[in-house]
Parts: sequence; C-alpha cells; structure tokens
Amino acid sequence: MKGVVLSRLPAAQLVDLSHEVPHYDVLAGALLLEACVPWFPRDAVHCAVVDPGVGTARRPLCVVDPEGRRLVGPDNGLFTPFLGEGARAFELVSDWGAVPAPQTHARTLSATFHGRDLFAPVAAWLAAGGDPSWLGPRVEDPVRLSWPGATHEGGVVRGEVLAADPFGNLLTSVREGDLGGARGLEVQVGGRAARFVRTFGDGAPGELVALVGSSGRLELAVREGSAARALGPDAHRGSVVLVRGG
Amino acid sequence: MKGVVLSRLPAAQLVDLSHEVPHYDVLAGALLLEACVPWFPRDAVHCAVVDPGVGTARRPLCVVDPEGRRLVGPDNGLFTPFLGEGARAFELVSDWGAVPAPQTHARTLSATFHGRDLFAPVAAWLAAGGDPSWLGPRVEDPVRLSWPGATHEGGVVRGEVLAADPFGNLLTSVREGDLGGARGLEVQVGGRAARFVRTFGDGAPGELVALVGSSGRLELAVREGSAARALGPDAHRGSVVLVRGG
Amino acid sequence: MKGVVLSRLPAAQLVDLSHEVPHYDVLAGALLLEACVPWFPRDAVHCAVVDPGVGTARRPLCVVDPEGRRLVGPDNGLFTPFLGEGARAFELVSDWGAVPAPQTHARTLSATFHGRDLFAPVAAWLAAGGDPSWLGPRVEDPVRLSWPGATHEGGVVRGEVLAADPFGNLLTSVREGDLGGARGLEVQVGGRAARFVRTFGDGAPGELVALVGSSGRLELAVREGSAARALGPDAHRGSVVLVRGG
Repeated sequence: MKGVVLSRLPAAQLVDLSHEVPHYDVLAGALLLEACVPWFPRDAVHCAVVDPGVGTARRPLCVVDPEGRRLVGPDNGLFTPFLGEGARAFELVSDWGAVPAPQTHARTLSATFHGRDLFAPVAAWLAAGGDPSWLGPRVEDPVRLSWPGATHEGGVVRGEVLAADPFGNLLTSVREGDLGGARGLEVQVGGRAARFVRTFGDGAPGELVALVGSSGRLELAVREGSAARALGPDAHRGSVVLVRGG
Repeated sequence: MKGVVLSRLPAAQLVDLSHEVPHYDVLAGALLLEACVPWFPRDAVHCAVVDPGVGTARRPLCVVDPEGRRLVGPDNGLFTPFLGEGARAFELVSDWGAVPAPQTHARTLSATFHGRDLFAPVAAWLAAGGDPSWLGPRVEDPVRLSWPGATHEGGVVRGEVLAADPFGNLLTSVREGDLGGARGLEVQVGGRAARFVRTFGDGAPGELVALVGSSGRLELAVREGSAARALGPDAHRGSVVLVRGG
Repeated sequence: MKGVVLSRLPAAQLVDLSHEVPHYDVLAGALLLEACVPWFPRDAVHCAVVDPGVGTARRPLCVVDPEGRRLVGPDNGLFTPFLGEGARAFELVSDWGAVPAPQTHARTLSATFHGRDLFAPVAAWLAAGGDPSWLGPRVEDPVRLSWPGATHEGGVVRGEVLAADPFGNLLTSVREGDLGGARGLEVQVGGRAARFVRTFGDGAPGELVALVGSSGRLELAVREGSAARALGPDAHRGSVVLVRGG
C-alpha cells in the first residue's frame, strides 16, 4: 500500500497509525479511528483496512465527515464514528464521472487486497487534491455498527466492555459525560469491583481500577499490568459495566 | 539504521515495509520482498536485513534487478526473486574505486549489526544518487535460495507450503499461472481438503479454503481465522500441496 | 501523538524508533535510547514515552544532553544515559516565561496520556526551533536509574543481565571496555557457560554464546535462536554474569 501511494504521489507523507488492531475486528478498528483521527490535520487522508469482506459484495467507500476529514476503506462499519449528521459517503466506482479508472483503481483489482489495489490509489488521489464527490455516487446508507452507549437507571450507569487496547486496558461504552462529574464512584465489571481513580498510577499494584481514559471513555486498568489479563474470561466484549454512586 | 540514513541524507523519505518477518527466516523475507518491492517507485532503495550470518564470511551486496530496482543487504538468498536474467550484483567493499570508505561504511564496522554500519550507509549513498557499480566488484554468483515451484503430473498440480503471513494465511509455491485458469479445483494439504474460492469471505466460518492471493500465489486460508493455526503441525514449510480437477 | 505533531508542524519528519519496549519497563526504554539516539542527527528531537507514572506527581521533562541532543518525556529515569556531566534538564511548565501555554500544552491535559497532550506538542515546538530553556525552570535533580556496571575482582569481571532485545539476546551491564580486549574469555550466567565469540554465526546451533553486541555491551545469544528462551528463569534482570580469563 505504501509503495502504491508513493508511486502515485511521490511527495506523500506516510504515517503509520497502528498495525495492532486485532485481525478482522471492525469495532476495534472503529474505536481506534475514533480516538486518533481527530488529532490529525484536517487535510490528512485516512486509509483504514479492517476488511474481512474484501472481494465480496461489500462496497468500497470514501467518507467525508462533518468536519471535512476524509476516510477511505471498506463499507463495513469501520467509519461509524464519522457518519454523524452532515457526513457524506461515496462509493468507489471505476471509471466514474470524469475520473479515468487508472487514477483510482489498479489495472487488475485483486479479490483479496483492495487496500493495495483500490484504497491506496484513492487515498493518493485524494491527497493530491482530488474531490471525493468525483469518486462515485453518494451512498445514503453506509453500514453503521451498533454503537453501544450507556443507560441510566436509578442512579446506576450501565454500559459494556468494548475492546482491549495493547496495554490490556478495557475500553467501555460509558463516556465521561455519562458520569456527570461525580466522584467516589463504584464501578463493577464481571463480578469484580474497580475503584474509580484519576490515572493509572493511583492504583495499588495489581489493583483493578477504573478511570476516564484519553479518549474520554471509562476504562478498566491495572497499574503496570493488564486489566484484560486480570479479568480474563470474566470480561469480554459485551460484559456489563455498572457505575454507582458519586 | 534510520538514524544513520537521516544523518547522511536528511531529506530521505523512510518507509517501514515490515518488522514481522520471522527472525532468521531468509525465505520468508525473500517472499515478502517479492510481494512488495515491485509496487514501489523504481528509484526507491530497498534495504533488507534478515541476516543470521552477519559478521561471518557472507558477502554484503547491492543487487540491481533487471528493471533497475536497487536492493541492499546480505548475500544469503534474500534477494533471490530479483536475481533473474539481466540482474547485476555488486559486493560492498570498503574504499573501493573512487568511493571513500566513510561514504559507505561506518568508521568501525561492528561484527553484529551491518544493517546499521554498512547497509544503511550504502542505502543512503544510493538514494543520494550514487552508482551501484562504484560500490565494489561484480558478483557473478550471488546466493540463490532454492525456489520451489509447481510440477504437473496427470492433471495434478503439486507444490508445497512456503510460509505463513501475519494473518496465518499459508503461501504456497503454486502460482496462478500453474492453475491454468481452471475452476472447481480441489486442493489438498496435510491430509485436509480445501475448497477453492475467489476470496476470503467466500469461505464458511472455520472452513479451510484455497485461493489465489494478492501476490499471485495459491494460499490456504480460513475466513476470519488462521489456516496456520487450523492446520497446526499438519502443514509447515515443505508440506505437499496438491491441486486437482478444474 | 503523530497527529498532534503534524497538526503543529506539518513539515515534521516522523520516525518510529520502536514500539517494542516492554510495557512500563523504564530501564529497557533507557537502554534502547542509549543504543539508538546517538546515531540520529544532532538536531533530531526524541520523544519517548515509557510512563507508568503519567498524571501523578512525576515531572515532565526536556533533557538537553552534553552534545545538544534534545529528549522529551517523563522524569522517571528514562533519560539516564543522557544525564552525564554538562547535561541540562528543564521541567515542562504551562505558560512559563514567554511561551504561551497553547504552544506546548494541549488545551486540556489528560491525566493518562501526556505523550499526546504534552510531550508531542513540546517535541513539535522544539523541532520548529524553540529553545529548551524557555520551556520551564532548570531541574537540577532529574531522576536517574541506578545504572549497573561491572566490577573487577581477581581477574573476574562481574556484571548482570539488564534486558532482552526482541531477538531474545540478553544485554548485560558489562561493556566492551570492561573486557580489556581479552580473548578466550569464559562467560557464565545462571549456572550456564557461554563461549565468547565474535558474532552470532560463530555459535553452533543451539549453543549459548557471549559476544560484544552493536551497542558495545556484552550480550548472551543463541545462533538463530533466543538466549532468553534458552535460559528461561535461569537468567533475568539482575542475574549475575561472570567473565573469566583471557
């Protein structure tokens, strides 16, 4: 993919964002993009490929989020966080409109590596100044992942575990705003209690803690350890997280 | 290595190709280069270090392939795919010809890290416009790995497993051209049958399938899984792969 | 972090040094910096984040080593190798001196990711030409790790294991200079003998050997294998290494 971009746009500035998204895990990829993309310059083009459906009927897509950020990849929900009010999506179509196919598509589109044969060429074309609306027709129903949030009932905030980061911190569907600025919270997950703290180092060694992480989500963590390993099978994607008190 | 390149050529554009080649596995490195190098601009310099023999009698090398692509690294077979008819190879020799040693060699050449002390300086020197033929004498017998292919016997194509990629897909020595465009193929490996499909998503969950991957090689795969893990000890480098029918 | 740097300094040349430092292992990070930083151009800015104490009372720091190299990160010992005679250190303070806070600090400093909110902005500011002494007050007592060396007693050099690199080579606290240029050395670690050789390929397959590695430290290695795995629990950080003879 990098070779393809550089062959088409030699001045491209390539940035590796992550190669640690668990294979085939579209939600984990979407969470990574949610956490990182907003920190990049607006004119960056984000090419993301978590694409178990490559070569099948799933559409290839360019998303332009409400702030003008451009993302290129499969239409499988990977771009869910960027599909809010005002977002536009375009299907990537060969020889569409005024754009000759060789500008955006490999001569032969493999069935197994659209990252190389389609998304990278399109990303280079966009980075060189191409207009997303020229890539193909508007897509009005891009795939959206179900995007868990938090519910409130009788003073209890209820959410769920979404993913583990490479440190073993567990990201949850509870956001800072759901906590209402409360202190002295009690957090429960997988039958275990976690003390609510401000940062990792506030935990005792080995202690399971909960904190608001850098992406604004409630996270479970173990100081200089791994919450994913500490909780093991007791906490996985979908495990209920309860927050009480304050 | 990156620091050395930038110290000598501050404008260098550094691209990480992969840090996932299994340690000491020269064939896996050669397969990676075969798959990736052709997609880069012709004037890129490829510095590759899978080098278990560093510091021994193995020669350091610059290869110029028939299309003018330049590769720098150890003479241990890593560049086999680029040594076809018309390729040239040059040994990297200190103070050779008109090139002063400090331009291509570290002041002290360590016995254990030629990547830093020799290959990176040479790559920077080439990227700055140096002529490969100035680096040292022609090497007429660069090391070539035995490079397994496929044989045909009575309608059966016979090849072997070569390597696993990071997804656990197994690359084989059978190339698309060996299959003759046939459909309805039956593939066998390690006593297991694999259905021939067009892309990963055509497999049922957990099903072992075979397909022509993005590098033009027959691959064994499991949809959203790992063929290497599924086959375990039944399939390793050298395991026979049979393709019937069509 | 990359996005933050590029947002502030679009022309920045980003270089990934390593993402393989074991989590929370400050000494391993310091050893990596010791081995790599000196090879980069003097005007590079090194942003390093092994930071288990993020958000606690530990200070954020910019170190300028005696040769003028600039390093940015937590004051937890990570920069110990660069704190020799003549080094200067500055605490990173918001709105200090003539530097407005937004130039060096994120609008909201998270408690858990100073890499993104503080170290990356400061690194970009320095790379753009900022003067380290403007960042905050001098720190006269930056944290220094205890930095094991070697002792000599009756012809025996005694040191210890410090860390494993990604190949499983074990770095020790014994430096080339401690060995006095001797040959025919006998090295012992964890009750095992290691033959002293010049480079990895001089070992027999599976043999534990000792050699002076590319960072100038005595290392334990197994040819095309892993000394860390071969020695297992017999060798860990702090294990005694003895060198005799010569």
